[in-house]
Amino acid sequence: MTFKASDSLAEQIARHLADRIVRGELRPGERIQEQKVTQALDVSRGSVREALLILERRHLVAILPRRGAHVSELNAHHVRSLCTLMGELYILLGNAVAENWRTEADLAPFLALQRQLQASAQANAIQAFVDDSFNVMRAAYPFANNPYLRETVENLQPAMNRNYYLALEQRKAVMADYLALFEGLLAAVRAREPASIRQQLEAYCELSCQLVLAALGPA
Amino acid sequence: MTFKASDSLAEQIARHLADRIVRGELRPGERIQEQKVTQALDVSRGSVREALLILERRHLVAILPRRGAHVSELNAHHVRSLCTLMGELYILLGNAVAENWRTEADLAPFLALQRQLQASAQANAIQAFVDDSFNVMRAAYPFANNPYLRETVENLQPAMNRNYYLALEQRKAVMADYLALFEGLLAAVRAREPASIRQQLEAYCELSCQLVLAALGPA
Repeated sequence: MTFKASDSLAEQIARHLADRIVRGELRPGERIQEQKVTQALDVSRGSVREALLILERRHLVAILPRRGAHVSELNAHHVRSLCTLMGELYILLGNAVAENWRTEADLAPFLALQRQLQASAQANAIQAFVDDSFNVMRAAYPFANNPYLRETVENLQPAMNRNYYLALEQRKAVMADYLALFEGLLAAVRAREPASIRQQLEAYCELSCQLVLAALGPA
Repeated sequence: MTFKASDSLAEQIARHLADRIVRGELRPGERIQEQKVTQALDVSRGSVREALLILERRHLVAILPRRGAHVSELNAHHVRSLCTLMGELYILLGNAVAENWRTEADLAPFLALQRQLQASAQANAIQAFVDDSFNVMRAAYPFANNPYLRETVENLQPAMNRNYYLALEQRKAVMADYLALFEGLLAAVRAREPASIRQQLEAYCELSCQLVLAALGPA
């Protein structure tokens, strides 16, 4: 683990486990035994229990009474459910930017991210591309100015990241499609057109969802 | 505390503290000292720390590195932010019922809740009325069939409950308005009319929000 002084030990353990869950080293449905983590990382049992609660909030772990902690399921129903909800939350964020941007400077962060996405696509840097996709959503938070929306999206992001990880290679092939959708989205935000924002973001989520479903394989 | 065997100790402590936060006995911004809770309830420090993480997930507590746990803020911005997000999630649930109900039997749970709401209004039973309002949203979960949406709404519900508690007496005066909106909502769901579902639910959330803001007093 890499340690950041500002994070609690529980948060650091949570990040370490989240990383292993996202990469599939801890498989969907797999039991996470507190004692094993305690021993492997040489940390207290209390810190591990706290880390598991943090991961439950981030939808990566399910804790059942008397049955302990398990890695969250990852099947077609979960993928579709998460894409649907995230899509609607993205639409709220997109509409918030459309309603509240005033000057060109307000849109500058999105144009900067667009350039980074284009550069990552050219360099075939898929992980940077995915990370910047999430940064687009984060750049919209100040426009929504809604702490509950921000927390909700941040709590869902790790599960979305796990979905994406499954289809990283497949995403490489469609980076150009994503860039085209992002260009359409920016135009819709600039023109303050909610119907078009919904259309672009639904297409974006549908594309992502189909890639992940294909990577999951037949149910 | 009343103990339920099926809940973990941390969950029971969380419920106890949530109840005190909702009732305002623990005030917005107030520090929650682990040691005090540990002593008052005669439980382990570890259980209290876990309970605080559960409450953070439910948006009732904020935990800051090196500054410990505090009761979440409750000001006009928080009230409006929560109402806005909850309103959008209610609309997703309402649309899911509208899209997926097939037979009259599918709508029966909502009609039963409508009768209970009417009875509570007549009896001036405001807490039962509020509880059944939340049960309407829960009766919609199977139609959305989305575990992430359900978890997200359940995590936000305690904070919404705290908002409502502030304006319980004021809500008494408008129970008839809520019943009229609920009747309109049911008609819109039955007719599968998304625009009308949005209109009824936005009016419902706006009414709730205004009551809470009025109870908060001038900023």
